[in-house]
Amino acid sequence: MAVFQIHPELLASCHRLGSFNLCHVLLHRNAMLPWFILVPECDVYDLLDLPEALRNGAMKEAAMVSEFIKCQLAYPKVNFAAIGNVVPQLHLHVVGRKSGDPCWPAPVWGHLHETRKYSSAEVRQVTDSLVRYAGLTVTDH
Amino acid sequence: MAVFQIHPELLASCHRLGSFNLCHVLLHRNAMLPWFILVPECDVYDLLDLPEALRNGAMKEAAMVSEFIKCQLAYPKVNFAAIGNVVPQLHLHVVGRKSGDPCWPAPVWGHLHETRKYSSAEVRQVTDSLVRYAGLTVTDH
Repeated sequence: MAVFQIHPELLASCHRLGSFNLCHVLLHRNAMLPWFILVPECDVYDLLDLPEALRNGAMKEAAMVSEFIKCQLAYPKVNFAAIGNVVPQLHLHVVGRKSGDPCWPAPVWGHLHETRKYSSAEVRQVTDSLVRYAGLTVTDH
Repeated sequence: MAVFQIHPELLASCHRLGSFNLCHVLLHRNAMLPWFILVPECDVYDLLDLPEALRNGAMKEAAMVSEFIKCQLAYPKVNFAAIGNVVPQLHLHVVGRKSGDPCWPAPVWGHLHETRKYSSAEVRQVTDSLVRYAGLTVTDH
């Protein structure tokens, strides 16, 4: 079986943090908001086309990231979406939001115009926290 | 227990079609795209905060709508999101998309500027199809 490859456009726009059982875990390079992207290893394009068990498993991993965003990063709200009109590979957006954030109340897609880059230390810190808090597995790429 | 009320802003922007076991089923009044909104009866604001069984059940109902959009309405792609930054009551967007549609490839939220209204006959037709295809229950409101 061919090795699963994360779409190059996702890798270009995100830091690759590691993986859970079903999903690869990416962090959007725009640090203005905590914007995680989960990529389930599958060849289906739309979330609602996934076989039920895999969909439920992927949603459970998204819920772990959501809990991390709320409890560890102190964002009271999380937006969730599976869109994929530009990058066809299935990927799940899990985005921390709060009133007054840089594009509140608009959704981030096409509306988040301010940008900031993470430092390497910040990416390491988020990764380490996800390892401790949610059992993220970190692998060398 | 208080009777569950769908948020008035959702009722203002949508036709109320009926319900599945867990979710009320609404159709966005903008007929430019097949844009369904599912409202699970619950008091949680974010999809990923739902208890797992309820979340999985609501996702299954969303998947039924997605299959309807693909198989009956002939849209090859479905966007899915739970945002709720403006209307806080949990609601799930299930939106049929295709290359070249009125806001392709942008997501609909804040990007769909063309509008068209459904006729009463069109709303009845969608409702009847959902009854036949997905077991929608229609109730008088």
